[in-house]
Amino acid sequence: QSSLTVFGVVDATVSRYSQRSETPLGVRITTSSTAQNSSGYSGSRLGFRGTEDLGGGLAASFWLEAGVLNDTGAGFSSGAMAFNRRSTVSLSGALGEIRLGRDYTPTFWNDAVFDPFTSNGVGINLIATASGFNTPGQAASGFQANPNYIRAPNSIGYFLPPGLGGFYGQVMYAFNEAVKYDPGTLTPNVANSQRAGRYVGGRFGYANGGLDVALATARSTIGAQYLQGTTTSLDIWNLGASYDFGFAKLMAEYSHNKLRIDSSANPISITPPGANGALVGVHVPVGPGLIRAVYTQVKYSNVAVPNQGVPGLSGDPKSEKFALGYVHNLSARTALYATVARISNKNGADLTVGGPAFFTKPINGSTPTPQSSTGYDLGIRHAF
Amino acid sequence: QSSLTVFGVVDATVSRYSQRSETPLGVRITTSSTAQNSSGYSGSRLGFRGTEDLGGGLAASFWLEAGVLNDTGAGFSSGAMAFNRRSTVSLSGALGEIRLGRDYTPTFWNDAVFDPFTSNGVGINLIATASGFNTPGQAASGFQANPNYIRAPNSIGYFLPPGLGGFYGQVMYAFNEAVKYDPGTLTPNVANSQRAGRYVGGRFGYANGGLDVALATARSTIGAQYLQGTTTSLDIWNLGASYDFGFAKLMAEYSHNKLRIDSSANPISITPPGANGALVGVHVPVGPGLIRAVYTQVKYSNVAVPNQGVPGLSGDPKSEKFALGYVHNLSARTALYATVARISNKNGADLTVGGPAFFTKPINGSTPTPQSSTGYDLGIRHAF
Amino acid sequence: QSSLTVFGVVDATVSRYSQRSETPLGVRITTSSTAQNSSGYSGSRLGFRGTEDLGGGLAASFWLEAGVLNDTGAGFSSGAMAFNRRSTVSLSGALGEIRLGRDYTPTFWNDAVFDPFTSNGVGINLIATASGFNTPGQAASGFQANPNYIRAPNSIGYFLPPGLGGFYGQVMYAFNEAVKYDPGTLTPNVANSQRAGRYVGGRFGYANGGLDVALATARSTIGAQYLQGTTTSLDIWNLGASYDFGFAKLMAEYSHNKLRIDSSANPISITPPGANGALVGVHVPVGPGLIRAVYTQVKYSNVAVPNQGVPGLSGDPKSEKFALGYVHNLSARTALYATVARISNKNGADLTVGGPAFFTKPINGSTPTPQSSTGYDLGIRHAF
Repeated sequence: QSSLTVFGVVDATVSRYSQRSETPLGVRITTSSTAQNSSGYSGSRLGFRGTEDLGGGLAASFWLEAGVLNDTGAGFSSGAMAFNRRSTVSLSGALGEIRLGRDYTPTFWNDAVFDPFTSNGVGINLIATASGFNTPGQAASGFQANPNYIRAPNSIGYFLPPGLGGFYGQVMYAFNEAVKYDPGTLTPNVANSQRAGRYVGGRFGYANGGLDVALATARSTIGAQYLQGTTTSLDIWNLGASYDFGFAKLMAEYSHNKLRIDSSANPISITPPGANGALVGVHVPVGPGLIRAVYTQVKYSNVAVPNQGVPGLSGDPKSEKFALGYVHNLSARTALYATVARISNKNGADLTVGGPAFFTKPINGSTPTPQSSTGYDLGIRHAF
Repeated sequence: QSSLTVFGVVDATVSRYSQRSETPLGVRITTSSTAQNSSGYSGSRLGFRGTEDLGGGLAASFWLEAGVLNDTGAGFSSGAMAFNRRSTVSLSGALGEIRLGRDYTPTFWNDAVFDPFTSNGVGINLIATASGFNTPGQAASGFQANPNYIRAPNSIGYFLPPGLGGFYGQVMYAFNEAVKYDPGTLTPNVANSQRAGRYVGGRFGYANGGLDVALATARSTIGAQYLQGTTTSLDIWNLGASYDFGFAKLMAEYSHNKLRIDSSANPISITPPGANGALVGVHVPVGPGLIRAVYTQVKYSNVAVPNQGVPGLSGDPKSEKFALGYVHNLSARTALYATVARISNKNGADLTVGGPAFFTKPINGSTPTPQSSTGYDLGIRHAF
Repeated sequence: QSSLTVFGVVDATVSRYSQRSETPLGVRITTSSTAQNSSGYSGSRLGFRGTEDLGGGLAASFWLEAGVLNDTGAGFSSGAMAFNRRSTVSLSGALGEIRLGRDYTPTFWNDAVFDPFTSNGVGINLIATASGFNTPGQAASGFQANPNYIRAPNSIGYFLPPGLGGFYGQVMYAFNEAVKYDPGTLTPNVANSQRAGRYVGGRFGYANGGLDVALATARSTIGAQYLQGTTTSLDIWNLGASYDFGFAKLMAEYSHNKLRIDSSANPISITPPGANGALVGVHVPVGPGLIRAVYTQVKYSNVAVPNQGVPGLSGDPKSEKFALGYVHNLSARTALYATVARISNKNGADLTVGGPAFFTKPINGSTPTPQSSTGYDLGIRHAF
């Protein structure tokens, strides 16, 4: 006999995206599209979860949750359903919870919890966009192509138990499951991307009354070249906070991302690239509805930018975004919502609110980057 | 806490398919196979659906339904499970229902509802076979490779409410989500198949007493070449009706399909190809059982036929089919069934009842087409 | 309304694998990895099953069961979920059960039922490893690449009813669904792997008191070359038994596998390769726990072994394994477990306990094979 809860979200939008730029010769160019899309307010999903009381305060639980692209019926693995959102088994008790499997990274939580748009739809904060969010609102593959930005597979997590006077926390270690060769000189001399994937991180916070504040930090291994003696990692820390005044809830976050290059052989002379982001936002309840607004930005440093000359010389790339939305709750489970958003890019930054890629082929010798991007979502979210 | 229904169908057959032809030199050739297959009576599936009463006559509902190939355990997306049959969220009330996502097209309904074999198994009507049904009974990729024959992704549908004195109806618009380039001269000069996919259609009917009659029409965009200024669409209309005399239920349908080529630049001089199909059938209840029979045909016009000389010169390709079956209901959910079917192809038509492709390599310099195709299903359908 | 049970297993481990060898020049080389893995004690899965009472002792039932790789959230078909473990519909009554779809082969049952580690984790018996188990513990593609070692698609099975005084039994036929060409000379002259897949087998046993003994046999068609007139099959038989003394349960199995080459044209002069395996093991209950131990081996005959000179000359390849484990049941559904295992390979045998492939590129001119392989699983299994 089973003991489980089947749950999910089906969230559908009609959305429009438009990216605009001007070529050096002054030609104004745009790409745009209108689409029936998914997950404008909340990520569409189908999940199975359950908990078993083992006695003595101990419990075992599992969680299998698959993302659903309900506009087409597809899933996230080769177009089909996989438990890509979360697949874990846990043992929990008075000392906390041990959790194994695929799960959210500690560093992602602040990017979602303190975002008025909870990292969904055209209103998503630019920290998430720049880091490579895998839904509408995606920059190519994210800053330094971090494979474990949102979630990490092969992970072990530990969570502090509830009831610590408002303090909460978690740590996560994700195995990269790399092969170790002995003698090491037999290690294949390839790009060795299979070594990427180790993630070590943690998040600690305090929630009491109207206040919620949390700090997270992680090192996510991006690549390794054994024979060259180099390892590259993305070092992340972010700090988020919210305060609920009742008539409004203020939210803010700062995020720092910097590439780290370790070399056992030669000293590294390049200055590693970085990306720092921030957001300030607000939720304002209005009867059964909720007004949401955010200002968010990302500034890159020491990154090579196409068509911008020497990195840093013409100014660091920077994106700014403003988003405004309204959610109308028809019930606790069902809501209608509308969001508008606009991004301004400077110095070669190329973030967009989603939709089609900008011109990907050179025009008059140079590939343009979007200087602005605007979009909207009109949607319905139904949870079950 | 969840509020949903898990439902499905597991339908398994033992089936045999045989295609026969004669080469110009008089050699009789056949391909045949025997198989343990799926969905001979009803499409195998696993689904999750639910409805929430929002008060005031308003309701929200969702529907996620995946096709299952239970003979192998595979699904329909890269061999895995996806909600390819239907994935929608709806808001419904006194004024009708708005539905977003992947859903059946209005024009397909008549091909299923008025088919004694409801478009499944070897008895499936030839309109569906010719249009490219994606189960056993499939011609290569269907007439004009209509991508939205059965279902359309990215769609918005509207359904009339019940209680209109027997009248019912629906309309559907499916976004092709194409990228619009401005200035248009920057549109990539490629086959641009991503522009295919727009579907606009509707279906209106009347059901009262023993009578059910419905008319459906649609335009499904097949392809577009922006820089050449051409757009090709498939124009469809079909009319189906059934009358239940009690001792027997008569069913009939006529379907008209014609390619439409719009050109903003040059006048189009070719006569566009077409395919017209029809069926007449009957259901005869016999105790706990049901006899099913159908005669169905498809006739093509202005299509190029391999090995048939000049199109139209040697006569238009035409297929005829007769199918007979018996369903024995063990309960409302479980049935045993048997179906036999035979197709005769003339003038290069190559429809089959399913199973292996006919000879795909030339024999003595010409690739033969099947002149007849026969098959049977023996199966069990269990719904849950 | 639905009538079904949703069930499953989420089993997660921390595992380590290490393979070691010595090159002819005396260099000791190893590959190793540590991983967070799935299914160390029981195969992780999500399933849907149900039974309908049809009256008169007759029942219809279905079973859809998908494997889950919960360490990453992936499934077994293109990284996504498919009902690869079992997808069947059945009709059962006083005369037994008829079952259609994808199901376990009769010959696999003995390899799992009489294995103290039920064919999971690093402790898995070598018969299963050598035959190509598709989880950690996998040799390249298994002996003779039998496509239907564990399960067969497109199958019809018959099961004896319960209540035969302890006797039980089943037979299975799986269609290869091959295309038959007539005249046969038109059969495409290709490797024709699509002909592989026919499986004919059965299993009969007796269970009474503490005793359980079963014999299984099958012929699994590996390949066929119509125009050459050859068909290759794997002939399998195995015999397993267990006796439960209360304080301990003894288990043993012997398995015989031999390639069979049928030729309608020329007599076959080669001696077909074979692989014989065996295991003896024990379960010892200790309070809420269970100690598990196994000795298992596989010996190959007439196989070509890389770097071993003439087949048979330097001795037949042979692998031996010892595994020891402990399962601590926290409840009927949840258990913690630990297993250690070690394989010794002789004369070119290359079985491993799982984890990374050994060196796949030549070192000093020859590709080494692992001479020993060790590993452990530390895990939690939660069933729902």
